[in-house]
Amino acid sequence: MPLDRETALGLDAADPLASLRSRFVIADPDLIYLDGNSLGRLPGAAQAALHETMTQRWGEDLVRAWPGWIDEPTRIGDVLAESVLGAQPGEVMVGDSTSVNLFKLAAAAAASAQATDPRRTVIVTNEANFPTDRYVLGGVAELLGMQLRLTTGAESLADVGADTALLSLSHVEYDTAERRDLAAITDAARARGVRVLWDLSHSAGSVPIRLTEAGAELAVGCTYKYLNSGPGAPAYLYVRRDLQGLLQTPIRGWFGQRDQFGMERDYVPAEGIGRFAAGTPPILGLPLVEIGANLIAEAGIDRLAAKSARLTTMIIELADEWLTPLGFRVVTPRDPAARGAHVSLAHASALKICRGLIEEAGVIPDFRAGAGANPGGLIRLGPAPLYTRHVDVWDAMARLRDLVSGGAHEKFSSEPGRVT
Amino acid sequence: MPLDRETALGLDAADPLASLRSRFVIADPDLIYLDGNSLGRLPGAAQAALHETMTQRWGEDLVRAWPGWIDEPTRIGDVLAESVLGAQPGEVMVGDSTSVNLFKLAAAAAASAQATDPRRTVIVTNEANFPTDRYVLGGVAELLGMQLRLTTGAESLADVGADTALLSLSHVEYDTAERRDLAAITDAARARGVRVLWDLSHSAGSVPIRLTEAGAELAVGCTYKYLNSGPGAPAYLYVRRDLQGLLQTPIRGWFGQRDQFGMERDYVPAEGIGRFAAGTPPILGLPLVEIGANLIAEAGIDRLAAKSARLTTMIIELADEWLTPLGFRVVTPRDPAARGAHVSLAHASALKICRGLIEEAGVIPDFRAGAGANPGGLIRLGPAPLYTRHVDVWDAMARLRDLVSGGAHEKFSSEPGRVT
Repeated sequence: MPLDRETALGLDAADPLASLRSRFVIADPDLIYLDGNSLGRLPGAAQAALHETMTQRWGEDLVRAWPGWIDEPTRIGDVLAESVLGAQPGEVMVGDSTSVNLFKLAAAAAASAQATDPRRTVIVTNEANFPTDRYVLGGVAELLGMQLRLTTGAESLADVGADTALLSLSHVEYDTAERRDLAAITDAARARGVRVLWDLSHSAGSVPIRLTEAGAELAVGCTYKYLNSGPGAPAYLYVRRDLQGLLQTPIRGWFGQRDQFGMERDYVPAEGIGRFAAGTPPILGLPLVEIGANLIAEAGIDRLAAKSARLTTMIIELADEWLTPLGFRVVTPRDPAARGAHVSLAHASALKICRGLIEEAGVIPDFRAGAGANPGGLIRLGPAPLYTRHVDVWDAMARLRDLVSGGAHEKFSSEPGRVT
Repeated sequence: MPLDRETALGLDAADPLASLRSRFVIADPDLIYLDGNSLGRLPGAAQAALHETMTQRWGEDLVRAWPGWIDEPTRIGDVLAESVLGAQPGEVMVGDSTSVNLFKLAAAAAASAQATDPRRTVIVTNEANFPTDRYVLGGVAELLGMQLRLTTGAESLADVGADTALLSLSHVEYDTAERRDLAAITDAARARGVRVLWDLSHSAGSVPIRLTEAGAELAVGCTYKYLNSGPGAPAYLYVRRDLQGLLQTPIRGWFGQRDQFGMERDYVPAEGIGRFAAGTPPILGLPLVEIGANLIAEAGIDRLAAKSARLTTMIIELADEWLTPLGFRVVTPRDPAARGAHVSLAHASALKICRGLIEEAGVIPDFRAGAGANPGGLIRLGPAPLYTRHVDVWDAMARLRDLVSGGAHEKFSSEPGRVT
C-alpha cells in the first residue's frame, strides 16, 4: 500500500469507480467528507427525481398519482433486493424507519418462536449493538413478557439456546466496524432452532450481502448511509419468502391489509412482503432510495467492496505510521473481510480532535461516545467508496496527523454534545 | 344559499380566503379537485423549501446539518399545536405515519390503564372507524392480551366502562363526515376512568380543534389531507403534558432516548413529548408540514371552518335539488357543526359515477367502498376550503348532475379497484 501521496493519486487514476464521484453534489471541493457512514452525500439525480415526483405527480396528477405509487415500496424493495441485498423479488419492502421495522420483525419473530415453543422467552443481542437496536429489542421483550439478554461477544452463540426466541445482531458494528459472518451465524443459530434478525444499516451498499445465499431469514436496514437516500430516508425490511406467511406484524396498518380499499371489518394480512407495511408510505422519499440502489448496482458491490478495502487499509496503515505515536489506537479489524467500510480510532481526546478536524482541518469524521475500553470515544472515518478518492483519505490522514501533532485540537471543547 | 351560479361567483368575490388559492400549484384550471380530504394540493412554497433542505442543508452542510434538524419534529409540532390543534408547546411531535403513531399511543395508554387497574382489558372503538384505526387497535389488543370491542354508535358510551382500557375514535368519520363532540366524549369517558385517543386525520386543518380547551389527552393525525404536506407526509401525535411521564412508547427507538448520543446501555425515555419518537425522522418531509400548518394559521381556522360550512352546505342543497331525484342520498349530517369538511353521497352506482366524473367530467371526487346501509359505496366530495372556490362546487355539482341524468356514467366499470 502507498505511503506517499503520488501513489494515492495513481490509485485514483486507475480507479474504475472514479467517475461515479461526479454523480454526487460536491459543493465544497476542499472539504473531505468521511462521514458517509452516517449521512451519505446527495446524488445529483435526486434533485430531478424529487422535483418530478412533487411537481408532476403530486402537483398535477394529484390523487390520480396513487395507482402509480401504491406498489412503489415493494417495487423499490425488489431493486434493493437485487442491487444491494442479494435477496429475491418479493422479499424486501421500503418504508418506515429502521427502528420501526426492527420492532415489527422482532415482535413478529419472537412471538412466533414462543407460540411454537413456550420455553423460548429470551431475545438475545450483543451489548455493543447499536443503541436503537438494544432499546427496541428491550421494548419488544417487555411487551411480550420476555427478557433481553445482552451478550459480550456477538460471534459466540454460547448464550443462544433452547430458551431463545430471537437473536438480533448488526452485520457491521457501528463502533468498531467489525463485520459478522452472516451465513455462519445464521446457520449456527438455526441449528439451535433460533432465527436471526440482522441489522444491515452499517453494511448495505458497502460490503457484499448475499441474503439468499446465506439463508438469512430476517433483516432490516437504513438507506441514508451508503445508499445515499437522504436524511431520515425510508428504511427497508427483508423477510425470506417462506417465512412471510408465518409472521404477523404487530402494527396492523391498512397498507398491510389484503384488500386495502375494501375497508373490510377484519384485518386479513396481505400475501407476501406487503403484509409488513403499516401506514401510508413516504412517497417523496421513495425515488431517492431507488436512485441510491441504482448507483450501487452501477458500481457493482464487489468493486465497491474492493475499493472500500483499499481505502480503509490505507487509513489503518497511515494510522500505524503516523497516529499510533500520537496516542491513537485502531479498534477496527485489520482483515478487510472482517470489517465494514469505516475505521474507528480510539483516542483519549477523541472529541476535541473531531471538533478540530471539522472546524479547522476541513475534514468531517464522525464521533461516537466512548464506553468500556474506549472511554475517550471513537473517531469514525467512513470513506464511502462511491465518492471518496484515495487522495482524500491520504489528505485527511495528513491533516489529522498535523492537527494532533501540533496540539491544535487542545483548544476545542471536550463537553459532550453533538460534534457537527 | 345560492341556487344559481352567479351567487356562487359572488361568494367567491367576497371570500376573504380567496387569495390563498394562489399559494397552490393549480396545473389544470379546468379540473375541479374535490379530493383534498384524501390528498391535499401542492403548495407553491413546498418546492422552494424542499430544494433548500435538499441542496443547501443535505447537499452542502451534509452531516453538519443535523444539529439544525434534531429538534425539528418537536419545533414543527409546536407550530401544529398552535396553528391547528389548539394544544400547548411541547405537546405535539411530528414523525412516523398515523398508523405507527396510533399504535404507539394506543399501546402505551392501554398498558398504562391496565397497570393501574387489571380489570381494564378492553379497547373500544366504533365499527365504522377508519380501517387502519380498527386494525391497529385490534393488533394492540392482541399484543396486550386484551380484547377489541367494536361499537355501532360512537357517540354512545354505553360500551365504555369499568372494563375499558382505552377508547379510540375519529374526530370526523371518513365515510359520513360525522363530527364527534370531542370535548363531551372526552369528559364522559374520563368520568368512567377511560382515556380517549382521537384520530384527527379527517378534521385537522378544516374544523376548529381545541385540544387543551377540550381536556383532550391523546391524539394522532395525518398531514397529507387538509394540511397539504404531501403524499405519505409525516404524521403527528399529541400527548397532554401531564400524561407524558406516565406513558411509555412500545417502540423504544434511539430518538426517544434521554441522551441520544450518549449511546447508553439502558433505555431511559426523554423528558417531554420527544419520548414518543422512534427512529430517524423523515427530514425532507418536515418543512412541508410547517408550510401546511402556516397556511392554516394564515387563513385562520375559524374562517376556514366557516367557508367549509358554506361549501358543504352548497353541496347538500344542490344534492337535494338535483341529485335526490337521480337516486343519490346525502349521508352526511345537515348541521354544519355536526360534520367535517366533506360530504358523502350514497348511490347504487357510486363507483361508475366516480369513474365517470374523473374520466369524462373533469371532477375528482373520492370513492369509498360501501358497507351496510350503502352497498353501492360512497362518493365523497371534499372541497378543501383553502383552495376550493364556491363556483368550483357549483360546477362540479352541475357536471355530476349532467353525467348521471344523461346516463353517461353507465359505460364505466363497476369492478372493484382504485378509482383514480
